[in-house]
Amino acid sequence: MSTAQETADGEMQPWAEVTPDAARRLLIAAVEAFAERGYHATTTRDIAGRAGMSPAALYIHYKTKEELLHRISRIGHDKALAIVRTAADGEGDAAGRLTDAVRSFVRWHAGQHTTARVVQYELDALGPEARAEIIALRRQTDAAVRGIIEDGVAAGDFDVPDVPGTTLAVLSLCIDVARWFNVDGPRTPDEVGGLYADLVLRMVGSKEE
Amino acid sequence: MSTAQETADGEMQPWAEVTPDAARRLLIAAVEAFAERGYHATTTRDIAGRAGMSPAALYIHYKTKEELLHRISRIGHDKALAIVRTAADGEGDAAGRLTDAVRSFVRWHAGQHTTARVVQYELDALGPEARAEIIALRRQTDAAVRGIIEDGVAAGDFDVPDVPGTTLAVLSLCIDVARWFNVDGPRTPDEVGGLYADLVLRMVGSKEE
Repeated sequence: MSTAQETADGEMQPWAEVTPDAARRLLIAAVEAFAERGYHATTTRDIAGRAGMSPAALYIHYKTKEELLHRISRIGHDKALAIVRTAADGEGDAAGRLTDAVRSFVRWHAGQHTTARVVQYELDALGPEARAEIIALRRQTDAAVRGIIEDGVAAGDFDVPDVPGTTLAVLSLCIDVARWFNVDGPRTPDEVGGLYADLVLRMVGSKEE
Repeated sequence: MSTAQETADGEMQPWAEVTPDAARRLLIAAVEAFAERGYHATTTRDIAGRAGMSPAALYIHYKTKEELLHRISRIGHDKALAIVRTAADGEGDAAGRLTDAVRSFVRWHAGQHTTARVVQYELDALGPEARAEIIALRRQTDAAVRGIIEDGVAAGDFDVPDVPGTTLAVLSLCIDVARWFNVDGPRTPDEVGGLYADLVLRMVGSKEE
């Protein structure tokens, strides 16, 4: 059984903002259960059991299973957006900011791969309102990366024939790290981030590459 | 309800090799059910019902739910490997063969996105033997793409500091198309294939780009 802050494979969880402790334990249990068995195959009873609590105790914190997924997805997408915005708003030229964005986005998807998989693959299970909210966050993440690329093109540092398509490809490349990343594999999250930042500079035709 | 050859969103299914017709209908029903609800939340009764058959009729063709997933995954991975091998074994220089490989691999992941998602996301649900067989196919697909990149480096056409890492990134980029591709979106599978082929030539530092 994992502790409140770390899953079985040593993945650190960014759930410090979820209080009280019982609500956080339930959220972490839900992430693990959804990742292992899928959202639809998981019951609130399973989640409560993993957290060492009764179903009645779960309902104090979350009314439905969808509320748990929505909370997980919201926190995950908020974090992804914050990571990309921090890089986009940073000092330095477009190549430096794009490098920062890719490195930190990849690190998050590798280090938090269990959460990222749930967040990325179970979007269809959300109701229309929750889904619209998450899609708006994704658009903002996309816009932050597109903004860096546009800055680079405007400054003459990048050569990008299709800015929206290249933005999509850059984000897709980083997100898919959550699917294949293996903590027992040959590369650390940081090493994958470094490799990917170099590849992305090539994709945008950066003069610095 | 979809026909035997086409799903609701017009995706053509490459299941012609599955006979008799009842076995093919069940396989297509399983792909749809797994994609919608996940493997663990789907019962053989659900699959039989979607195919308009009885559970008893299903057992004539497939002994277990895992056998269905294994068959789907095997056919999907065989197809992915055949696509990449055809390009790798083609005429022409490394840039031309890499372009072919990326274009056709992307077209498959976009056009067959429902199947590709099941094949890519439900790997953990396979038993050890089936999983080992699928992993061997994935290694061969990886080796085919790596071979093209190595040829390009040897000929002085490509500049790639990390061949295994770049191979991984190229395949990952193409595979993730299955996650985000939307038939109602602005790009056709062919257009995504063309965009991605250009981006991949940049990733490998191709002189032709």
